[in-house]
Amino acid sequence: MSPWLDAVRWNADGLVAAIAQDAATDRVLTLAWMNREALERTAATGEAHYWSRSRKKLWRKGEQSGHVQAVREIRLDCDGDAILLRVEQAGGIACHTGHERCFFKKLEKDAWHDVEPVLKDPKAIYGDG
Amino acid sequence: MSPWLDAVRWNADGLVAAIAQDAATDRVLTLAWMNREALERTAATGEAHYWSRSRKKLWRKGEQSGHVQAVREIRLDCDGDAILLRVEQAGGIACHTGHERCFFKKLEKDAWHDVEPVLKDPKAIYGDG
Repeated sequence: MSPWLDAVRWNADGLVAAIAQDAATDRVLTLAWMNREALERTAATGEAHYWSRSRKKLWRKGEQSGHVQAVREIRLDCDGDAILLRVEQAGGIACHTGHERCFFKKLEKDAWHDVEPVLKDPKAIYGDG
Repeated sequence: MSPWLDAVRWNADGLVAAIAQDAATDRVLTLAWMNREALERTAATGEAHYWSRSRKKLWRKGEQSGHVQAVREIRLDCDGDAILLRVEQAGGIACHTGHERCFFKKLEKDAWHDVEPVLKDPKAIYGDG
């Protein structure tokens, strides 16, 4: 019933990698994973949904933090095993660490350096307990 | 000897996902995979190396096509399981299909549509046989 979902090459775990890129700044925010339901709901609702591999559950991005991602565009790559979302990031924070985005570690002189600030304390995002 | 390589959370196959983003245009070009050697060589040489899952071999991007990627920056994400490269894309073509990038299929009305042109015939890139 959904040929466009069948066109995705789901991996052995039924997942596909999904890149979220900020539609306003073009910055790459996150790499997450989607199962079929996550991609279907993302397209249907216009809000990014992912599959949490650690919690093994569907997850509407921002359901706890409020940092939802409004999806402006959904792309698939040439061989069907990667998704690219262009999103409007609520709160300007995509990462659970309170950084704007997950890619805040830069390789310099054979070491990873945090080169972007924490914008909000995770305790203030998720609560203390 | 290489703590920065040990900081990467390699998956069960010894791989990490690597996003290549054009340093000039900010466009997301590809999602590929790296093993430890690919990441080490990328950092050492300043040219993107990946692991080809289909051919099961290390692959210097552009070794056949000439479409090498000069790496300007290497980033790691918050939980260590995704890499972001900022690259200068030789020839302006990252995709083996001859498109500028792999993400040329856009979801519109429940179907994927090719919305970006083929810049060069793959036969002209790779030869005819």
